Amino acid sequence: MARIHRPRNYTTEEEVNLALVEGLFENVLNAIDDEAVDFYIWPDYIQHSPSARQGTGPLKELLRRIKRDHPQSVHDVKRMMVDGDMVMVHYHARRWPGDKGWAAVDIYRIENGLIAEHWDVVQDIQPGSINPLSPF
Amino acid sequence: MARIHRPRNYTTEEEVNLALVEGLFENVLNAIDDEAVDFYIWPDYIQHSPSARQGTGPLKELLRRIKRDHPQSVHDVKRMMVDGDMVMVHYHARRWPGDKGWAAVDIYRIENGLIAEHWDVVQDIQPGSINPLSPF
Repeated sequence: MARIHRPRNYTTEEEVNLALVEGLFENVLNAIDDEAVDFYIWPDYIQHSPSARQGTGPLKELLRRIKRDHPQSVHDVKRMMVDGDMVMVHYHARRWPGDKGWAAVDIYRIENGLIAEHWDVVQDIQPGSINPLSPF
Repeated sequence: MARIHRPRNYTTEEEVNLALVEGLFENVLNAIDDEAVDFYIWPDYIQHSPSARQGTGPLKELLRRIKRDHPQSVHDVKRMMVDGDMVMVHYHARRWPGDKGWAAVDIYRIENGLIAEHWDVVQDIQPGSINPLSPF
């Protein structure tokens, strides 16, 4: 995956944190690979997403369900930011080709090399927006 | 407003960009002051929010409407990030005391000292989430 962020003089910690979350999107979410989860996320990470349960178990289960029901799902990354131990990803999730999908922002806090905390905000893409510009 | 972000060795540009967006939240959005808009946002800024029209005119009109209908509205900032010319704000918007409101992430691009581009993702706070933790 091409790096989608604006170049700055990142610290070594920031380079590592950005690469970790890029890897999560490439090797877990877009590969839809539940077996890769443990390389990126602590088992006891703090999950703030209102639609998710705590722990990596429910995430692995979700990935297996997506792989079965929507194997063409994509997390299409539009931009990323890194600031110390925090990484943000703004992306367009689609379940199948042509799916309008949803816009989402994920925020990750990294601790000791793996994701330790996660927040998200999710909004369905609506047809007929009053704004002709793309939400991305 | 207290700064809600994690300390890093910011560049001077990042310090300025962070302060600009902090000022937007304090002096425009939470002050609900349409007359302060031009100190923070270029008139021809690029607006990606699906619920907004282009230009600062519609934003000023919205602020006047909020001031009239919901003068106790707050944009309760939970965390911010800065990365070069990009600033992110994760906040809880509420129209009145006790309003469940919505979670939002705003992303701003700053150019020549003012906001030049804006994206957002918005999600209503739902009662009865399967996740007992706060979305923030």
